[in-house]
Amino acid sequence: MNAIPILTLKRLPVYLDLLYKYQRAGMKTVSATRIADSTDVHMTQVRKDLAFTGVVGIPKVGHRITELISAIEQCLNWNDVSSCFLVGVGHLGKALLGYSELSRKGLRIIAAFDLHPETTGEYLHGVPIYGMEKMPNLLSRLHVHIGILCTPSEAAQEVAEQMLAGGVIAIWNFTPVKLDLPEDVIIENIDMSSSLAVLSRRVAERMMRKTS
Amino acid sequence: MNAIPILTLKRLPVYLDLLYKYQRAGMKTVSATRIADSTDVHMTQVRKDLAFTGVVGIPKVGHRITELISAIEQCLNWNDVSSCFLVGVGHLGKALLGYSELSRKGLRIIAAFDLHPETTGEYLHGVPIYGMEKMPNLLSRLHVHIGILCTPSEAAQEVAEQMLAGGVIAIWNFTPVKLDLPEDVIIENIDMSSSLAVLSRRVAERMMRKTS
Repeated sequence: MNAIPILTLKRLPVYLDLLYKYQRAGMKTVSATRIADSTDVHMTQVRKDLAFTGVVGIPKVGHRITELISAIEQCLNWNDVSSCFLVGVGHLGKALLGYSELSRKGLRIIAAFDLHPETTGEYLHGVPIYGMEKMPNLLSRLHVHIGILCTPSEAAQEVAEQMLAGGVIAIWNFTPVKLDLPEDVIIENIDMSSSLAVLSRRVAERMMRKTS
Repeated sequence: MNAIPILTLKRLPVYLDLLYKYQRAGMKTVSATRIADSTDVHMTQVRKDLAFTGVVGIPKVGHRITELISAIEQCLNWNDVSSCFLVGVGHLGKALLGYSELSRKGLRIIAAFDLHPETTGEYLHGVPIYGMEKMPNLLSRLHVHIGILCTPSEAAQEVAEQMLAGGVIAIWNFTPVKLDLPEDVIIENIDMSSSLAVLSRRVAERMMRKTS
């Protein structure tokens, strides 16, 4: 299994969304040129990206859409559902528990942990919620390798370390904290704070220019 | 109001989180060196970033924490709450309606719209939910300039265009769609799909290496 470049990986879901749309519209084949036009990615780049999936286009016809969909899903490991768990059942954590798109994208949350669960032992969107003290034992029993981190910032580093101790190899980090962990840990950050910082400032700058 | 570089803007919330923590711990002042150590940003860079806030440190003492907090909040316009609205009340949209951190970060959702609201005219987390047909009229009456986009991918471009027609200047885009809009529109993307694509693939690569 070869390492696919990160920017290719980030574009594959965009192609996939488009292919689902074509499929719903009843199309059978699509050219790289058409994908390029609809995604604003250069055609040469689209061809390179699709080559990573191992699918070969048919001259003058393009790619079979079903074949391309399943090749991309396989590339992203989205055809295979991985179990994961979530720590920090605040507003964002609850949201993710109810976010049904995740399972379509290969991730199934099988347990959630919180320092002060409102309702320990209860289920939220079908996922059981436990106190943090249950985490070490459950992680080692369940063999889960992916953790979603939604704790308050001040707890993020400590919880991440507990995750690693429990056998986690990948963390999807929704806190703004830059985690300090061994290099071989796979970390993907969704930093809503940074994004909101840029948005808020750019809006303020625009408003000032308008009034000055 | 000068344009602050995007990377500086993205780091300011990280400093801010740290400063809140110091404040809760009873600290009064902090040095750039200490901020650098705790955030893994080079000291020279921390100094440059803080200079954009206009706050000047005191030699051998550092920065007053309350002063620095309010300077950063003002830089990000987080001290001033902006009204915004949200379109697409699915799982993710509902989550954001309940995400109380937003108002601490200068954003208050005052209305939400959905093509098929489960409960039109009802409130969710104190926010009224309307049908899409109400959007043009309400936007022009409310003078809201920021829209949060949480629709399904296939509706994203069209809804974004309707937002602009309603006077929106900034879109916080939670769909994986690369929006095709005039250059002066402020767009910030939170692309969970791309992030999940990278995470899933890296985990799959790791697992394959282990078993091979």
